[in-house]
This record gives sequence, structure tokens and C-alpha cells, in this order.
Amino acid sequence: MVRVIMHGCNGRMGQVITEMIAKEAEMEIVAGVDLSDHIQNSYPVFKSMKDCDVEADVVIDFANAKAVDGLLDVCVERNLPCVLCTTGLSEEQLAHVKEASGKVAILRSANMSMGINLLMKLLKDAVPVLAAAGYDMEIVEKHHNQKLDAPSGTAIALADVMNQAAGGDYEYVYDRSTRREKRPEKEIGISAVRGGTIVGDHDVIFAGQDEVITFSHMAYSRKLFATGAVSAARFLAGKPAGMYDMSRVIEGK
Amino acid sequence: MVRVIMHGCNGRMGQVITEMIAKEAEMEIVAGVDLSDHIQNSYPVFKSMKDCDVEADVVIDFANAKAVDGLLDVCVERNLPCVLCTTGLSEEQLAHVKEASGKVAILRSANMSMGINLLMKLLKDAVPVLAAAGYDMEIVEKHHNQKLDAPSGTAIALADVMNQAAGGDYEYVYDRSTRREKRPEKEIGISAVRGGTIVGDHDVIFAGQDEVITFSHMAYSRKLFATGAVSAARFLAGKPAGMYDMSRVIEGK
Amino acid sequence: MVRVIMHGCNGRMGQVITEMIAKEAEMEIVAGVDLSDHIQNSYPVFKSMKDCDVEADVVIDFANAKAVDGLLDVCVERNLPCVLCTTGLSEEQLAHVKEASGKVAILRSANMSMGINLLMKLLKDAVPVLAAAGYDMEIVEKHHNQKLDAPSGTAIALADVMNQAAGGDYEYVYDRSTRREKRPEKEIGISAVRGGTIVGDHDVIFAGQDEVITFSHMAYSRKLFATGAVSAARFLAGKPAGMYDMSRVIEGK
Amino acid sequence: MVRVIMHGCNGRMGQVITEMIAKEAEMEIVAGVDLSDHIQNSYPVFKSMKDCDVEADVVIDFANAKAVDGLLDVCVERNLPCVLCTTGLSEEQLAHVKEASGKVAILRSANMSMGINLLMKLLKDAVPVLAAAGYDMEIVEKHHNQKLDAPSGTAIALADVMNQAAGGDYEYVYDRSTRREKRPEKEIGISAVRGGTIVGDHDVIFAGQDEVITFSHMAYSRKLFATGAVSAARFLAGKPAGMYDMSRVIEGK
Repeated sequence: MVRVIMHGCNGRMGQVITEMIAKEAEMEIVAGVDLSDHIQNSYPVFKSMKDCDVEADVVIDFANAKAVDGLLDVCVERNLPCVLCTTGLSEEQLAHVKEASGKVAILRSANMSMGINLLMKLLKDAVPVLAAAGYDMEIVEKHHNQKLDAPSGTAIALADVMNQAAGGDYEYVYDRSTRREKRPEKEIGISAVRGGTIVGDHDVIFAGQDEVITFSHMAYSRKLFATGAVSAARFLAGKPAGMYDMSRVIEGK
Repeated sequence: MVRVIMHGCNGRMGQVITEMIAKEAEMEIVAGVDLSDHIQNSYPVFKSMKDCDVEADVVIDFANAKAVDGLLDVCVERNLPCVLCTTGLSEEQLAHVKEASGKVAILRSANMSMGINLLMKLLKDAVPVLAAAGYDMEIVEKHHNQKLDAPSGTAIALADVMNQAAGGDYEYVYDRSTRREKRPEKEIGISAVRGGTIVGDHDVIFAGQDEVITFSHMAYSRKLFATGAVSAARFLAGKPAGMYDMSRVIEGK
Repeated sequence: MVRVIMHGCNGRMGQVITEMIAKEAEMEIVAGVDLSDHIQNSYPVFKSMKDCDVEADVVIDFANAKAVDGLLDVCVERNLPCVLCTTGLSEEQLAHVKEASGKVAILRSANMSMGINLLMKLLKDAVPVLAAAGYDMEIVEKHHNQKLDAPSGTAIALADVMNQAAGGDYEYVYDRSTRREKRPEKEIGISAVRGGTIVGDHDVIFAGQDEVITFSHMAYSRKLFATGAVSAARFLAGKPAGMYDMSRVIEGK
Repeated sequence: MVRVIMHGCNGRMGQVITEMIAKEAEMEIVAGVDLSDHIQNSYPVFKSMKDCDVEADVVIDFANAKAVDGLLDVCVERNLPCVLCTTGLSEEQLAHVKEASGKVAILRSANMSMGINLLMKLLKDAVPVLAAAGYDMEIVEKHHNQKLDAPSGTAIALADVMNQAAGGDYEYVYDRSTRREKRPEKEIGISAVRGGTIVGDHDVIFAGQDEVITFSHMAYSRKLFATGAVSAARFLAGKPAGMYDMSRVIEGK
């Protein structure tokens, strides 16, 4: 039985994961952490990670950036592996995460879905061939109208994988309206569409001579990210200290 | 028989139109105009419109912006209707076109394809309903890597139709990477993808609550624009002075 | 205040609508009808429509085909307008619906989403032009792997709109693997993709000479259909006898 | 200098390849073979392969199935590597091809484009992971209205790669309208859209829980297949006997 502490249990994703784990035979949420207490859960809920003295095998975190430092300290102290899903961490916090991963297992990915992470894995193989053959690389991402940042962290992560696989000397371009020139070879255009309640679409486009290859990922529901987090927690329980990401979960080792 | 003068006959589009009209029973190219004389045509070719003294019913122009003023003067002088397909005209030239249209029939469209013009017509009906119902409006266009300008003239023309149909107070946004905020309601995001030899794709996206409606137009070949120009010429021959566009050709009146 | 009876209140869609109407200021569910009583609602629930003696302005039905006849009888008897969302009605039941609509307002659509119904409205305008211009018409629909029927009722309804707008003499083709011939002009190909949890995508494709126009509708959640049903109920309350559909709701008259 | 015999030189693809090779510094067409002699080429043209006594390093074949047996005999006799692009071969002819490949280098692929062949290579890696994770696999292909067969040979080849990578026990389904059941796990649905002048689109769809991954390939022009054939010829010249396909050309070894 994998015993989980749900950090941020009363937020939207915390509740989706609570429902999901309730249906898993070999997993169980043994405690939650949340400042808010407006929801009645089947497990005890603590105001902060420090107060939570329940024994567990892994933490799933979907809280907010402010709570991350306290969380990391406790995970290191108790040697508690942590699936860190909160986004928008500062440079200092990212350094803190890295430092903590020297002492405890931490898994962090720009996007928790199996599909996006599989796509990244494929891009590592495909991009060297396509870039060498002269295909131009572009990304179009679409998200709901409440999203603050653009382009999405996932789009940037995809571009990073592509850039690295293609030699590392590509420039990211977010706006072509202010210049008047042919497309430079060594650029990756990244376009951000915003509208309605779109959960998250990502198109990776390779445009060549008389042909276009597109790899698309479309998310229908945020439950997707919960599914990924639960798989990650199952994988991470019992693992030695280190920095992990979803590609390890996909490979299963 | 509709007698055509092909202005810019030895350019790429001029030659496509030459081939196309050769197969039409009731149309004929009676003369061409081009500075270059590297191609052997079945009709006489003149260095400039002024030198061309052949009688005709209509001019099709696919030359370049520099030649437009001379062309307009001759069309007015000889009362020769003109399908003006050259793009990139200056403000002064657009004023010249308007002035000329007071004396002779002139047809000009941001995009000569039947499909795009039909799409514009439909948007006039659809946008008032969709905008009132709270759908967010976005455009994504894709073109080849040799295109200098972004977004495409066609994308701007589509946005103009949408903006006008929705009340006229929308802002066009080409870059969201420099701000950090929820999407304002009254904006139309326009993204420009560039790569390979893509002839021209345009997606008009309406993103609402749990649903997305997309109107897409995809061009497979520049022949499309030739087809539109030939239809336009057939329509324009014999018409009275005025400014026409492709929507009139589609309606056939 | 529009008073609603929710017929099939304890099913999935019944509950979504219950939540949705709870947030509407000028609407209220005054009673529910459901054989199952495993859910606690804020309104009284009756085993059948006959037992439900609560006064109301409109019924929303998302139950199952078996319950439709009883529902119709009560609606006629009490002059209660009815938004009929249950699908899979038999020929006899469709006749019953039609008969009932002579005495009471009934609204029924193959698909309750605003988007699909708006698309149908646009197709009525676009198809005559596109069919006359020689574009080939095709539909591709995608749904989840639990769906029993193919193609979807919505795809058939779209094809019916297209066929009627194009002259009425088109044949629907579901399989091209068993023949070996060029595509006949007067056919509409309808393809059904099945997989995962896809809520419902519909692409209406017009393929012409060197260009393709596609109208796409994508549903992200079944909530969409609840939204449509609630709009329809608000519209239908107080309307005279007759057969209505969602196009009337969109037009608002 | 790679010396090429163009078999079927006066057909559409033969002429595209003629133009293409004319621009290559290190390749040259030294002879053509075609029954028709209506085109003037810069190289000598023979009525059949038997009559063609010009020395060469490789043959590119874009003729028709009837001419394939004669071609193969000459290639074996003169030890002349052959890029075989003609489609629609009979079972007997496929056996003949295999036999010939014991004595001379022969390259044959269902689709000559770099993009499709790269896609096939990626599918070999992706499908085992995706199939194991429970994603449903579907293919949608689109071609012009003059195409006789459906689904396309390329779609079948893609399905074969997927089926093999997923364990080999999948059934291909071309029509779901005649059954009424949930989608069986072990099937690959293949849909064929026909319309206009579409050169060739292929979508490979993986539909999972709340997410869909799509790999799309879109051809803008048949020149694509000429480009592939020319690359293949450059690769095949000088190679030992054996059966080759485009994946070897992509790998470059």
C-alpha cells in the first residue's frame, strides 16, 4: 500500500486526486495539508506540512509557490519523496528544489500528462533528423482565457527539448509583426492562442519542402494532470534521492 | 469572348493564368505587359501598359507595386476594367486606386481565392451571434518561410471583418509573451506561423465555454489565386465604374 | 422566475443541470423525477412524471427513451412545455412527439450545443454556394470508445442539412474500402473515429480545386449540452404549442 | 556523378524528376524509357528498357505495373539498382520483385516521402508505449476525388507498422455503421476521406483518457514523392543486392 500525503488537498486538483486515489486498491491518502478547511475529507487535514505527523511514503503537491519551501524542508527532514506539481517557482525556489533533490527523491515536470512527456521523448529522436533535413520548427499552443502567462510552460519545455536536440543555437520568436524579413533558419516560432475554457493544446509543427508534419497533444480535462501525478507518486515511493521527471515514469525505471 | 490583357504576364502568376485561360473557351489573352521578355508567349508582349495598344475588355494585374500607378492611368483613360491582384500598395497608391474606381471598374481583394472570400461572407453572419454569446475570437495563419510580412494581409482582412461584425472595438494582439494577465474580452489574437513551403492556411477560432468552433481555409497551390483572378476578370468585363471585391464575384451580381 | 421540472434528475446530465440552475438567478428547479433515489437533492423527487404534482413552467428531460411516452402525455395534459434531450427514440415515439407538439411546445435537437446548432445555420447559407462551385462535401466525427452507434446522430443531422441545402440528391457513404472507383460527385462521405474519452468532434469538410475549407466543432465536456438545455428551457417557457429546435433559441425568437 | 535511367520519363512524375535532377550537380539522367514520345527531353528516350543500352548507375521507375516485369529482368541482367515507385503490383509481381532483390539492389516503399517514412520510424518507438497505456489507435487519410482505392496504401502501411509494434493482433475496421457496440480494444479504425485535389493527408490518432495525441502528415504537392525518389536513387547507386526501403535512406546507411 502506497501512503500519500496530499499537499494542497482542498484545491481543485487536490480534490480530483482525492477522488482518483479513493478508487485505487494499492494507494491511500493518509493525510492532507491545506490552509483552507471548507471541505470535509475522509482523511485528517493539517494547516501546514510541519504540523502533519502522519507516516507516509510520498507527498503529492498541488498547492502554491509560497508553500513550497516549507514543504521541501519537511521532505528532506523526514526523507519523504515528493511529486512537485506546483508551477511558477522563482529562481531561488528552483535552486532550493535542486538542493533538496540531493537528499530526497523529487519529481518535477513542466507538464504532468503522459502524452506530453511521451511527445518530448519522441522529439528527442525526431528532431535531429528533421532539423538536419531542413524542416522549420514551430509551436502553437492554446489555453483558456484565464491563463496569465504566455507562452505556456509546456510550450517552452517542448521548445527546449527541440532546441537541444537540434544543436542548441535556435532563437525563440513570439512576435513576427514587428519585423519584415524571411524566416531565419535557426528560429522556433512559438504562438499562444487564448480563449474560452481550452484546457491545453500543443502543436509541434515541422514544415518542409511540400510537406508538413505535426505532432499534436490535446488535453480534454485537468484530470489528466491528476492521473500523471498519481502515476508519478506510485513510481517515486521508495526511490533514492535524486531529481526525477515524467520520462522516468513512462520508462518505468 | 472576353479579351484579357495580362499585366505582369511573365511572372509566376502571369504564366499560371496564361495556361489557365488557354483552356477557357470564352476567354482569350490578347496581349501581355512585362519588363522581362525571357518567355515566349502566344500573344504580343509590351514593355509597359502605355505601349500596349491592343483592344481588350479587362486587365488582370499580377505585376508589382511600382507598375500600379501607370496601369491605373491607362485603365481610366481607355475605360478598361481592372482586376488588381498586386499587393503591398502604399497609402498613396490605395488613394489612387479609389480615385480611379470613380471612373472605371476596379476589383481588389486581400485574397483572390473563392474559399477565403466565402469565409469572410459567412463570418459577417456568424460573428454577431458568437461575439454576443461570449466566444473569444482568434486567428492563426501559416505561410512559407520566404514571406516577408506577418501577419498575412488575409489574416488582417479576416480580423477586420470580424471586428466590424462584432462592434468595431476589438484590439488586435500579436504577442502575449510581454504581458502577464487574463485575456481581455475585446481582443483578437493573431498568430503567424512560418515554415517550409506552406502556401497559406488560415484558422479562425471561436473558443467558448466547453466548446471550440474553427473555420479553416487551406490553400494547396497558388493556382487558387489564378482561378479567382480569372473568375473575377470574367465577372468584371463590361461592368460600370466602381470598387468591386470578390464577394461580388461569389454572389455573381 | 422560470420554474423547472428536471426529468431524469439523478442521472449524470440531470445532476450537471441541477448544479447549473442553482447558479441562475431567474431559474429554479421545483421538482425532479427519477426512478433512482440514491442522490439527495434540494428539491422533491418523484418516481414518475404522473406522480409529480408540483406547478412548473417547463420540463427538461434527460432521462431515457422508455420514459418519454409517459412524459409527453403529462406535458400535453398540463400544457407544460418540454425540452426533450433524450435520444434513441423509436419511429413510433417520434410520431408521438410530433403529435404532442400540436398541443404543447416541444423542443428537440440532435445536439443541444449552441456551437453545433450555429454551424447548422451557417451550413444552410454556405452549402448552396459551395456545392454549386463543385466542392466535395465530407464529414469526420470523433467520439469516445463507449459510444454504441456510428456515425453520430449529430453527423447525420449535419449531413441532412447539407444534403437538403445542396438539392437533396446526395448519397451518404460510410465505407469506401469495398469499391474501386473515383468519388461520385453526389455523395457525402461520413467517417466515424472512436477512441478514448473524446466528448465529440465534428469536422465538415469542403474540398475543392487546390483549397479545402473545414468547419470544426469540438466539445470539451458534456456540460455543453446542459448549457444548451438550460438556455432552451428559458426560451421555451411560455411559448405556444409547436415543434421548436435550437436554431430558434439561437435566433432568440 | 550518379547516372540515372528514368523509366516512365514522359509521365507526370517522370517529368517532375527530370526537372529536379537537372538542378542537381552530382546527378544526371543519361536515358529515359517511355512508350509515349510526345515530349522532347534533353536525353535519349527508348521504347522499352530492353532497347536502352546506355550505361547507368541506377534506375528510377515511375511507369506502370505492366512494365515492371521487363524492367526487373533488365536490372538483374545488368546489375542495375532500381528505385521502384510504381504502385498496384500484383502478388506475382511482388514475388518477382523479391526474387530480383536477391541479385540486385531494389528499393520500394508504400510512400516515397521523407515525412511519412520518418513517421513510420517514430511509430515503431511510440506505439508499444501508447498501446500498453491503453490508447486507442485510429487513422484518418484524405485524398483527391480521382483516387480509385481506399484506404490509401500509405494508410495500410502505417496501420501495419502500428499493428506490428503493438503485438500483431489488431483488426482493421473500415466501417462502423453496420454494427452497434462499444469499440473493441484491439482494433485500428481506418477512415478514408475523398475530395477535391487533396494530395494526401494522413492523421495517426492515439486517443486516451482525457487526452488525444495526433501525428499528422500533409503533402502539398506530388513533387514530394519525386524528391524522395531522387534521394533514394542517390542512396541506392552502388549498393549490393537486397531489398531496401526509405527508412534506410533516412538513416543514410
